[in-house]
Amino acid sequence: MSHNTFGHLFRVTTFGESHGVALGCIVDGCPPGLALSAENIQAELDRRKPGQSRFTTQRREPDQVRILSGVFADDRTGGVQLTTGTPIALEIENTDQRSKDYSEIRDSYRPGHADYAYDAKYGIRDYRGGGRSSARETAARVAAGAVARRVLPAGVTVRAALVQMGPHAIDRSRWDWEAVNANPFFCPDPEAARLYEDYLDGIRKDGSSVGAVIEVVAEGVPPGLGAPIYGKLDADLAAAMMSINAVKGVEIGDGFASAALRGEENADEMRSGNGGAPIFLANHAGGVLGGISTGQPVICRFAVKPTSSILTPRMSVTRDNRDVDLITKGRHDPCVGIRAVPVAEAMMACVLADHYLRHRGQTGARV
Amino acid sequence: MSHNTFGHLFRVTTFGESHGVALGCIVDGCPPGLALSAENIQAELDRRKPGQSRFTTQRREPDQVRILSGVFADDRTGGVQLTTGTPIALEIENTDQRSKDYSEIRDSYRPGHADYAYDAKYGIRDYRGGGRSSARETAARVAAGAVARRVLPAGVTVRAALVQMGPHAIDRSRWDWEAVNANPFFCPDPEAARLYEDYLDGIRKDGSSVGAVIEVVAEGVPPGLGAPIYGKLDADLAAAMMSINAVKGVEIGDGFASAALRGEENADEMRSGNGGAPIFLANHAGGVLGGISTGQPVICRFAVKPTSSILTPRMSVTRDNRDVDLITKGRHDPCVGIRAVPVAEAMMACVLADHYLRHRGQTGARV
Amino acid sequence: MSHNTFGHLFRVTTFGESHGVALGCIVDGCPPGLALSAENIQAELDRRKPGQSRFTTQRREPDQVRILSGVFADDRTGGVQLTTGTPIALEIENTDQRSKDYSEIRDSYRPGHADYAYDAKYGIRDYRGGGRSSARETAARVAAGAVARRVLPAGVTVRAALVQMGPHAIDRSRWDWEAVNANPFFCPDPEAARLYEDYLDGIRKDGSSVGAVIEVVAEGVPPGLGAPIYGKLDADLAAAMMSINAVKGVEIGDGFASAALRGEENADEMRSGNGGAPIFLANHAGGVLGGISTGQPVICRFAVKPTSSILTPRMSVTRDNRDVDLITKGRHDPCVGIRAVPVAEAMMACVLADHYLRHRGQTGARV
Amino acid sequence: MSHNTFGHLFRVTTFGESHGVALGCIVDGCPPGLALSAENIQAELDRRKPGQSRFTTQRREPDQVRILSGVFADDRTGGVQLTTGTPIALEIENTDQRSKDYSEIRDSYRPGHADYAYDAKYGIRDYRGGGRSSARETAARVAAGAVARRVLPAGVTVRAALVQMGPHAIDRSRWDWEAVNANPFFCPDPEAARLYEDYLDGIRKDGSSVGAVIEVVAEGVPPGLGAPIYGKLDADLAAAMMSINAVKGVEIGDGFASAALRGEENADEMRSGNGGAPIFLANHAGGVLGGISTGQPVICRFAVKPTSSILTPRMSVTRDNRDVDLITKGRHDPCVGIRAVPVAEAMMACVLADHYLRHRGQTGARV
Repeated sequence: MSHNTFGHLFRVTTFGESHGVALGCIVDGCPPGLALSAENIQAELDRRKPGQSRFTTQRREPDQVRILSGVFADDRTGGVQLTTGTPIALEIENTDQRSKDYSEIRDSYRPGHADYAYDAKYGIRDYRGGGRSSARETAARVAAGAVARRVLPAGVTVRAALVQMGPHAIDRSRWDWEAVNANPFFCPDPEAARLYEDYLDGIRKDGSSVGAVIEVVAEGVPPGLGAPIYGKLDADLAAAMMSINAVKGVEIGDGFASAALRGEENADEMRSGNGGAPIFLANHAGGVLGGISTGQPVICRFAVKPTSSILTPRMSVTRDNRDVDLITKGRHDPCVGIRAVPVAEAMMACVLADHYLRHRGQTGARV
Repeated sequence: MSHNTFGHLFRVTTFGESHGVALGCIVDGCPPGLALSAENIQAELDRRKPGQSRFTTQRREPDQVRILSGVFADDRTGGVQLTTGTPIALEIENTDQRSKDYSEIRDSYRPGHADYAYDAKYGIRDYRGGGRSSARETAARVAAGAVARRVLPAGVTVRAALVQMGPHAIDRSRWDWEAVNANPFFCPDPEAARLYEDYLDGIRKDGSSVGAVIEVVAEGVPPGLGAPIYGKLDADLAAAMMSINAVKGVEIGDGFASAALRGEENADEMRSGNGGAPIFLANHAGGVLGGISTGQPVICRFAVKPTSSILTPRMSVTRDNRDVDLITKGRHDPCVGIRAVPVAEAMMACVLADHYLRHRGQTGARV
Repeated sequence: MSHNTFGHLFRVTTFGESHGVALGCIVDGCPPGLALSAENIQAELDRRKPGQSRFTTQRREPDQVRILSGVFADDRTGGVQLTTGTPIALEIENTDQRSKDYSEIRDSYRPGHADYAYDAKYGIRDYRGGGRSSARETAARVAAGAVARRVLPAGVTVRAALVQMGPHAIDRSRWDWEAVNANPFFCPDPEAARLYEDYLDGIRKDGSSVGAVIEVVAEGVPPGLGAPIYGKLDADLAAAMMSINAVKGVEIGDGFASAALRGEENADEMRSGNGGAPIFLANHAGGVLGGISTGQPVICRFAVKPTSSILTPRMSVTRDNRDVDLITKGRHDPCVGIRAVPVAEAMMACVLADHYLRHRGQTGARV
Repeated sequence: MSHNTFGHLFRVTTFGESHGVALGCIVDGCPPGLALSAENIQAELDRRKPGQSRFTTQRREPDQVRILSGVFADDRTGGVQLTTGTPIALEIENTDQRSKDYSEIRDSYRPGHADYAYDAKYGIRDYRGGGRSSARETAARVAAGAVARRVLPAGVTVRAALVQMGPHAIDRSRWDWEAVNANPFFCPDPEAARLYEDYLDGIRKDGSSVGAVIEVVAEGVPPGLGAPIYGKLDADLAAAMMSINAVKGVEIGDGFASAALRGEENADEMRSGNGGAPIFLANHAGGVLGGISTGQPVICRFAVKPTSSILTPRMSVTRDNRDVDLITKGRHDPCVGIRAVPVAEAMMACVLADHYLRHRGQTGARV
């Protein structure tokens, strides 16, 4: 069962609500002997942290992570903290739990949010800040992803970028990975990033919000990760990305565009390579064939809907079924897709780490 | 672990290769007391069966299903065969295993197929007809889906349709569910279906192939199915659809289009309904918010790449790393997306059945 | 995968080492709307807490539990804290981490302990107090068990008792549940309990230790919990009890004694009951037939080996394979079986809660 | 979920009723490249087959196994059939489905059988021959176990023996593995075997039955298999053995006897070994410490209750709650423990294979 767990051998279970005591996760199945410190994890968390520019929510959370278990250091490890193979519990206290008036959100269902769905399912919900359905949960994923990166074989890199904001796609010919960390949008096209500043300022001042498309790329992935039929690498990636808050679509390689292609255009041709592995002449497949990695870059893209919390009144109903017009005040991301970028990397890293261990388990492969 | 299993409470494990002895599945966790006969299942299988028009592969497979276990009839059941709550094993013998020359496919990797990936992973593969990676496996899914439909609460309908072939999308204003079973493409737009005939004849005569987009719609789904965070209904749907052969993208509701929307446009507004449940004024969300069904139609769309088996020679390599130009002869679907339509329904039914039982288990809900 | 997780629908994942920062668990899948406070859980933890008599380890741990997530109270709940259906994270800080000299345990393998096995598996271990293999982990189980009790249908009681210490079995004719909490051994035979005082004092003064047998009884369990074949209620109970530290044997009902019986003696005869359910005239089966509960009391018994930490020198080897004679100093339980009693109740409660939800999920039963 | 599945990486799902069309299993996760033929599996099945002596049921089942998938042979494999890493489906048709009068068993609950429990759970059951609760299901386990043996590293042997029949235990000083296959009881003590002939003839002629104790021993198991806390090797063994029909108790190493020991007696002392691994001077622990194998023989014992089908009338009730006296006629094993011996080996092999792959997955160990 996987209500709040993902992965099989590299297995992450998260907990926590937006305004609860703390959130975090248990990472089970991590290989022993990997160097892991709170600093490693904190560096990833800091990339996702809110309030780093005017384009993300102004909620102030230090998102300070503590490692509660699963690591050990002594003189024999040279004082370096290593994983022990036992569960790694990671905890982030919630500190910015402003006491505020929740009566509106308590009694009404915000359109586009999970409010009604949670009530319909559970009959009770922690409505403060969205409770369990808040994107704040993704901090736990980023923490787990930082562990996952340690598990991946040397040479694997996982990077993500924002490739579309609202209707404005980047120009892929200007793609520059260096640019990604040089603008507040994780955008690989510096020119697009400049345009996004004005664009998003406008959205923000309108009290509105806008969607985005994120692309995640894993390079250096060995061939052979994945499995038929329901353990396909791309099926797990699809689930992983779709599980991120506000995501409404996922594609691998050419994705939806491949529907319009003919067979001749879509097949990634091959030529013999020096090392024995074939050289692919294209990557329409996004690095996955038959659910198994081919050694090409694994490429995944997903769509994030606009933040549902906006200042324009929307029609809704109360818990006791009366009509109401709602404005969702508070500190919100005008484009929640931005902060999904480090989350996307974390999910890719977790899926790859899991499949790496699964592949090693079944086949004994050393990659 | 889920290499060849999907679902948790309604749990399907499939087996079989394209040209092996048989294929099939075990359905575990099915509720007891449901009427289920081989005829029920056969009716679904016949919709997916190849060779029903010139637009699908001419391989001749009767796809006759046998129920090996998990059902029982006696005079107390009035002779009606009922599920017993124990595992239901379903088996389809492979009959059309033409003896043919497999030397080319044995020694070379067909571009776009899983050949190289399987060899890289396992070091061995059953290359006859694609082995385990053949779309023939989807017959087992359709059989399982027929069981899943029995599990769903009364009033739930699951239907799918082809909404784009190659670059040609249907006109949604002409959508007619009746039309779907009246043309060889499962197309809900009769006019588009007529155009597809010529179009696909041309593709077929060129020895080429083309992609497609399929849409699956489940109506009457009770609110409350799904769960946070990794057990989200849409995350499981994404995995289910992405696990279908040749699928490269999945979206829920507005999907990728939602990235271009502003928050005001995207929020599905609500008004108070008579029965207590709200009336939604739009369904951008595709029936799922926060990973949980809202009672609106659950809408899922996925892209199928063009069949990789084509008559135009493509560059490739042999198993021992020599260059080769390959033509994939044989009986193939010019648009493999067509036969994905009943498969899509099956996967939707399985995911909903699983979440229905999970929801009932956790909350005790009677829906 | 279940390295550190047990249960399926009621699902517990634990973390933590004996001398780490904290230990605890995530309980996932708990039904919503159940009253649950830290006090409820603390009451169970206090029964297991060390240092309550001279017969348990003198380590001083308050074992104070915090609920980090998954519960909610507001005016609508009357201020009562209810479960929300989301993951319940429970945390217990470790406070009694005396700085001491671990050099001996670091370099040598204590016979009977997991030291060598952990090193052979992981190549690294947190040896302080036994690390992950310490019985301290069972605090997390007791906390989870307190949640499980809330899930069980009204009328189910779960109680355990120590029925043998060393070679000294109780006299079952004197069984008195009231006595269990009136002596430091959780012993239902007050006379035996008196004898155990002197006996265990002697063991303790010798710096030795002794084993025990624990019996767990669940009454009021509805018929129908459990499942064929690998989801048998007794198979899950066996795993649950065997997973407790130092347990070496588990039996259900008559257990090993049933091997010596003839069929006539073993069959639990039935007579018609007023309510429709049969009245059983005996309970050799321990409440489980074919892996499914019958409505009779579910009875499980398990053997705990003597604590391996003793003051008599034992032959062993160092990490670098040199001979050594070891004494395990420190604060230890002379009969670790005593504190296994509340742990046994917790495991029984967790297994029953899981099967209760599984049963409800598959069959829709209201019990 | 594991209703009818066991194992995680080496994963077996079984199906089938006693008098249904067929029974069998899917083995998922098997490593590729292992030689596997129907003959390999048949050899194991033949050991379990009924009707081989007058001491087992006279039901005549050829138990002929077919491999439906997951293996492949061509000239490149030298014609040897190898596993491909995809699911291995194994099927055994039921042939001895005598048409007989089932009215008594249909309407009444046989004491000691699962009849009442199944009806209470499912409200329907296939009562012919016990349906899903029949020991006939164990044929599927034995087939899976034959695959598991192929997975285990070279040098691992798994053997079982009957060590007690009714109240008569063997003399362990006469233990001779050669004797096990030389008598109809799988008994390692030839003298005891001779006594059992008369003893069991008497039981059989009385129309009675008797229990047994079985011991399973795995030698050559590498250290490091197993995991904390709920993935303990012994916890999984306990579940595996307890899931076998009629088993009521399981123990590891000294088991229940260890409760009566003092710490000095129970600790398995060690001395330095030549190869770096310690030499253990005793094996009270049965090869498992902290849930992880130590390299010593893994020793497991379990108790089988007497067959519940006997010719002495027993009090029972009908389905509609009337009193009845029942005799269970038909072809039954007077000591069902005998045929549990090959089943025990199969379960041990499956558990070890699963943990071997899990260990390799997490740690990358080559053992």
